[in-house]
Amino acid sequence: MTLAPAVPTLPARVDAVLARFLTARAVFGRDEDLRDLLAVIRRFVLHGGKRLRPALCYWAWHGTGGTDGQDEEAVVAGAALELFHCFALIHDDIIDASGFRRGRPSLHEEFGQRHAGQGWGGDAAAFGRGAAMLCGDLCAMWAEELLAACGAAPDRLRAAQSLFTLMRAEAMAGEYLDLLGTATGHRPSPPPLQVAGQSGETVPPIAPIARQLERGRGEGPDSRRVLRVVRLKTARYSIVRPLQIGVVLAGAQERALAACAAFGEPLGRAFQLRDDVLGVFGDPVETGKSVLDDLRQAKPTMLLAETWARAAGSDREVLRTHVGEPELDEAGAARVREVMTGCGALAAVERRIGSAHRRARYALAAWELTEQARRELSGLADAAVRRSR
Amino acid sequence: MTLAPAVPTLPARVDAVLARFLTARAVFGRDEDLRDLLAVIRRFVLHGGKRLRPALCYWAWHGTGGTDGQDEEAVVAGAALELFHCFALIHDDIIDASGFRRGRPSLHEEFGQRHAGQGWGGDAAAFGRGAAMLCGDLCAMWAEELLAACGAAPDRLRAAQSLFTLMRAEAMAGEYLDLLGTATGHRPSPPPLQVAGQSGETVPPIAPIARQLERGRGEGPDSRRVLRVVRLKTARYSIVRPLQIGVVLAGAQERALAACAAFGEPLGRAFQLRDDVLGVFGDPVETGKSVLDDLRQAKPTMLLAETWARAAGSDREVLRTHVGEPELDEAGAARVREVMTGCGALAAVERRIGSAHRRARYALAAWELTEQARRELSGLADAAVRRSR
Repeated sequence: MTLAPAVPTLPARVDAVLARFLTARAVFGRDEDLRDLLAVIRRFVLHGGKRLRPALCYWAWHGTGGTDGQDEEAVVAGAALELFHCFALIHDDIIDASGFRRGRPSLHEEFGQRHAGQGWGGDAAAFGRGAAMLCGDLCAMWAEELLAACGAAPDRLRAAQSLFTLMRAEAMAGEYLDLLGTATGHRPSPPPLQVAGQSGETVPPIAPIARQLERGRGEGPDSRRVLRVVRLKTARYSIVRPLQIGVVLAGAQERALAACAAFGEPLGRAFQLRDDVLGVFGDPVETGKSVLDDLRQAKPTMLLAETWARAAGSDREVLRTHVGEPELDEAGAARVREVMTGCGALAAVERRIGSAHRRARYALAAWELTEQARRELSGLADAAVRRSR
Repeated sequence: MTLAPAVPTLPARVDAVLARFLTARAVFGRDEDLRDLLAVIRRFVLHGGKRLRPALCYWAWHGTGGTDGQDEEAVVAGAALELFHCFALIHDDIIDASGFRRGRPSLHEEFGQRHAGQGWGGDAAAFGRGAAMLCGDLCAMWAEELLAACGAAPDRLRAAQSLFTLMRAEAMAGEYLDLLGTATGHRPSPPPLQVAGQSGETVPPIAPIARQLERGRGEGPDSRRVLRVVRLKTARYSIVRPLQIGVVLAGAQERALAACAAFGEPLGRAFQLRDDVLGVFGDPVETGKSVLDDLRQAKPTMLLAETWARAAGSDREVLRTHVGEPELDEAGAARVREVMTGCGALAAVERRIGSAHRRARYALAAWELTEQARRELSGLADAAVRRSR
């Protein structure tokens, strides 16, 4: 026999808010097809997820003046962040054509399978993408609605809404730059040309190399561009803005906003670099995501930038052959991993993670916070950096 | 020499609000790639469009107590409706794989062409869809932001925001049901089976027909389901909610909301039926859209429902061959149009349009409004129903 904890945990409270909110979407309760759509969204929203953003929001609120008895507003705001994150995941998976999420088929995949299974007409994949897009649109819209209903005082709510809007714009901007970087940095040089008369030997074409030199870099992603995406898409979106939303809901001032950034920017960098490592070296059973997708797309990560910067000779051939290859299999991925480890790129990324993590810890120590909040945020930072999922 | 009008027209004022708002998106001004993204969105938003929703919002506001000197709030709210409409168009075009919009390549098509033209890596169509999805997401988010900044008194703004949220949910719900209806109602019977021994003769398989009889209908879309989509996706979204948002911004009461519905529901129906007719019989140069897409997808419209309900014998064969055929050409479409005209379906839809239009006019006559607003709304209703684009 297991006993339920007397006090529900924060993730359980966030989930309860989300479940209640989704149940109350009246437009979707009257029609069988719409009830069914809502059930799919509900399962996605309530199934899994680390609930990191709600925790950051809650403890920043708690540590900067939030009153214990009134913590529901921080929980509801956290739930709104989570609902927005569901939107981002659903649309990201469509954009990246990722088939798995949280250990299940991703949402567009689920709708596509349903279409195929029922033998409906038209293109199953297009139906899956369309239906999932709409689910994402609904989550984004509901996130705003939920935040507006968090119960904070009007001026604090307005401040939180401004930050939320900024966060949305940053997330979209980061996602676009990521997509653009993947497209433009993908397979940077065309397959080597066969040069007549030198049977078996190949020389790379000159134009792309000249272009690369002109841009002052070799093959592979540009690390400044990678960091720009990391800042917008992860540091701001996943860490800094959730912290700041908690802080403004607690009524804290300018200085606390700066402290959120000082702590959140390096932590966000460490979090994303860990994500990149897990995207290639992780265990799909734990991460719930494919471990091939990033390589197949030649996703412009710091790991890939470090690898191109360090790899030489035959290692570069391995990268040219396998990275960005849409049909890459596990054997090819294993060869790329060997290169990443062998040339020292993995270790370099781990050093970057360690250094960003330390920087975040210094900033956390300097932030004027209650001790309980500092402890909790410190634990969240460690978990975000050391996680295996 | 042409003289600029002394008083800018309503569409010009809406466009000026949109242009100012987009220029002020600071996150997008600092980075070359993001400035470029913003320029694409700006061109889409400011290029064309009938600006019907802003006009409905404005004249409902004007006719129910809006104060002349303070009409900026109604103009800004109308601009927010238009921005949300851009989101809906961009995502709809992705879902329907429509290549044209407002006489130009649709947004996903434009990004796809750019990808292909630049010789970037990966799938050009997927890049186009992804980038356009993000543009749509930005428009949806900005629409909320713009509405929140319209300058109305807090209680009126809150009422407008509630209606806006409801409208968004209805639009998404309608779009999903439309997508589902297209998938499930598409090519309702599989191609006839060849029966052995009766060379050249074909008999349709029994199971689908039995299923159709069981559902109490023949082939083609179910007209009740079609009307459900029309109500959510067009009547509420395009007409009733824009009117009601104008009305609550003017501080009007419950009775005026009901008047919006009494006028807007039949007008929305007429508007959508006109759209369906233009989608098959329109002039692409005027509509700016393909005149084959609806037929290729077997879009479940009232026109198609009426056609299936009336067509017999060889006409049904024409429908089975051409409707839902992804490669349908102009010659095939011409044969379908002949069937639609010949069996009386087009005339039946025109009668439905006429009757809904009359109903809207009666409701407008009964609505307590200033005479100027009644005149303007009457003109908008006529234009929405009689338009050729």
